[in-house]
Amino acid sequence: MTPRFELHAMARSGPSYAVGLMLMLCREPFDYRHVDLYKGEHRAPAYMEKNRFGVVPTLIDRTDGHSYVQSASILQYLAEVLGKFGGGDAKQRAEAREWLFWCWDRLAPNLYRSRGMRLGFRQFSFDTAHMYFNEGSSALKFLDEQLAGREWLVGSGMTVADIGLYGVIAFASIGGFDVSQLPNVLGWMKRIEAQPGFAAPQNCLPGESKLVAAA
Amino acid sequence: MTPRFELHAMARSGPSYAVGLMLMLCREPFDYRHVDLYKGEHRAPAYMEKNRFGVVPTLIDRTDGHSYVQSASILQYLAEVLGKFGGGDAKQRAEAREWLFWCWDRLAPNLYRSRGMRLGFRQFSFDTAHMYFNEGSSALKFLDEQLAGREWLVGSGMTVADIGLYGVIAFASIGGFDVSQLPNVLGWMKRIEAQPGFAAPQNCLPGESKLVAAA
Repeated sequence: MTPRFELHAMARSGPSYAVGLMLMLCREPFDYRHVDLYKGEHRAPAYMEKNRFGVVPTLIDRTDGHSYVQSASILQYLAEVLGKFGGGDAKQRAEAREWLFWCWDRLAPNLYRSRGMRLGFRQFSFDTAHMYFNEGSSALKFLDEQLAGREWLVGSGMTVADIGLYGVIAFASIGGFDVSQLPNVLGWMKRIEAQPGFAAPQNCLPGESKLVAAA
Repeated sequence: MTPRFELHAMARSGPSYAVGLMLMLCREPFDYRHVDLYKGEHRAPAYMEKNRFGVVPTLIDRTDGHSYVQSASILQYLAEVLGKFGGGDAKQRAEAREWLFWCWDRLAPNLYRSRGMRLGFRQFSFDTAHMYFNEGSSALKFLDEQLAGREWLVGSGMTVADIGLYGVIAFASIGGFDVSQLPNVLGWMKRIEAQPGFAAPQNCLPGESKLVAAA
């Protein structure tokens, strides 16, 4: 059977992983299309017709062929159309969206850029690298405080807020961040990792285009 | 008549302005509650009960007293409940959300931090300030390209994407950014400024708590 979704992404991209993880947790098989950022495939005109921002990931819903972009927005789209992990009511949906905006304002750029620098994709001055590290560390500490006494970020079950933030924090250590001193974050990560369909970054998106389905 | 919405914010905050502007464009009067950031009122326990992130703005919907936070999320909430500027269909709603995530990933932090530095609220090293300026300039240039041949960011009418991004770009010059060389951005700003209910930053949110209504 042809799967409903086609994911254009790259295995080593954090935002790509978040969307791949969401599809796996939803037990939704998908056609994975490898976009080679090293070869500049995300800047090719055919790709930019699908993604005006020229970044990964892009999700195509084959129901009508429309392309969805921006990982946090894709998570919410999938929650809406699959009826999973969106929150129990309108207030929880808003709350999950609030966490995702906080994530892209305060958490993700600091962690992803620190990682990009360590992996050699990005170059920053010492001062700027230090600023990203400090702001990322503050954001992680804030998250740890917010998770005190809670199992999930929103309400009493896993939502796209948890999945989106996990997709960033899964790469924290590569960026030089130490989550081992953040007990609430650690416990929350373990709860996500115990969910049916969960796949760690190295087991989620493959290195080449192929059909992907949760184990 | 008691207005439906209560906005806790500060006039000089860009995200506060975006929400105030949305309410005015929706012709929705609101009770404005001044939060004095200089006195640390956003960190007071009573305020943080409404806004876990300890930032402005916070919108209270008196229908049930629930607090909504994160300006870009508030814009979408208002679009949903007021049925205005949300986009014509589900695809346009997703597209507006994509622009808002792009805004908080690539545009807003660079412009707001450059402005905060010029106003003396924030301090960054020369290198970091330079990085913010370069990334903000690139984002503005990209936006100008995207607006070529278009009146609005999404579909054929104004949406929360336009309002949210305008709320950032209205402060661009204070951050040292020159939009005078970006003809498509300038034309788009003029279209927004011509809408009924529009208010510029200095005419939108007052310096003290009071009832606010569009002229």
